Amino acid sequence: MVKSASWAPPGAIVIEEALAALQFDGQGLIPAVAQDATDGRVLMLAWMNRDAVRASLETGRVTYWSRSRAALWRKGDTSGHTQTLVNFRIDCDGDSILLLVEQVGAACHTNRHTCFYRELGPDEWVEIVGPDIKP
Amino acid sequence: MVKSASWAPPGAIVIEEALAALQFDGQGLIPAVAQDATDGRVLMLAWMNRDAVRASLETGRVTYWSRSRAALWRKGDTSGHTQTLVNFRIDCDGDSILLLVEQVGAACHTNRHTCFYRELGPDEWVEIVGPDIKP
Repeated sequence: MVKSASWAPPGAIVIEEALAALQFDGQGLIPAVAQDATDGRVLMLAWMNRDAVRASLETGRVTYWSRSRAALWRKGDTSGHTQTLVNFRIDCDGDSILLLVEQVGAACHTNRHTCFYRELGPDEWVEIVGPDIKP
Repeated sequence: MVKSASWAPPGAIVIEEALAALQFDGQGLIPAVAQDATDGRVLMLAWMNRDAVRASLETGRVTYWSRSRAALWRKGDTSGHTQTLVNFRIDCDGDSILLLVEQVGAACHTNRHTCFYRELGPDEWVEIVGPDIKP
């Protein structure tokens, strides 16, 4: 399902002031949780540095920092599975981010809608599929 | 709203096998996102070590690792605002946790239902309250 972009970028000064409220860790990173704005499913947890936050806010295209590749990672550039920003929220301590997003296709590189597809059952990890994954 | 516990603890062997699927970071920690099992709101992001995961799974009372106090932190012990585990999920890489929880009272130490109460508006951070916070 392809949706139109819905993000109205704040101005550059607002973005810089917004960045000042964020607490980055010793590696200059902050965890960001992406939640599907349509159905509330938690899709993934990834990391942002200052440039990733800035790029996400400026463009509305969610951009993370890939720790394994040590590079900016604009979600969907290779897979087509983009995330468009709907809301950008931070927690009470300013040390984690919640992104409400419009997710195109699968959020997970395994082609599942969400990365959180394993749930601990009575005996082992079980894969949850389909509508069951919605809380 | 006080709810009854709904967690059926797995056996000790299942818990140890489940722990083997988790990737802890250099400090022995893994980020855990708590989501309200009732309405899907993302409540908070905190950290767990192996003992915190084990305690959460054994008891169904969500227990984190407090980085500031360097101690186990059983949510609600001082505030009364407990989290009871409903589902325990992990992501594709096994390096983050999603907890579906029954939240008693406010998840946030500021007495708000969720820690993610600040949203970036056109000009500044704005506080979201009430039902608006539901995606």
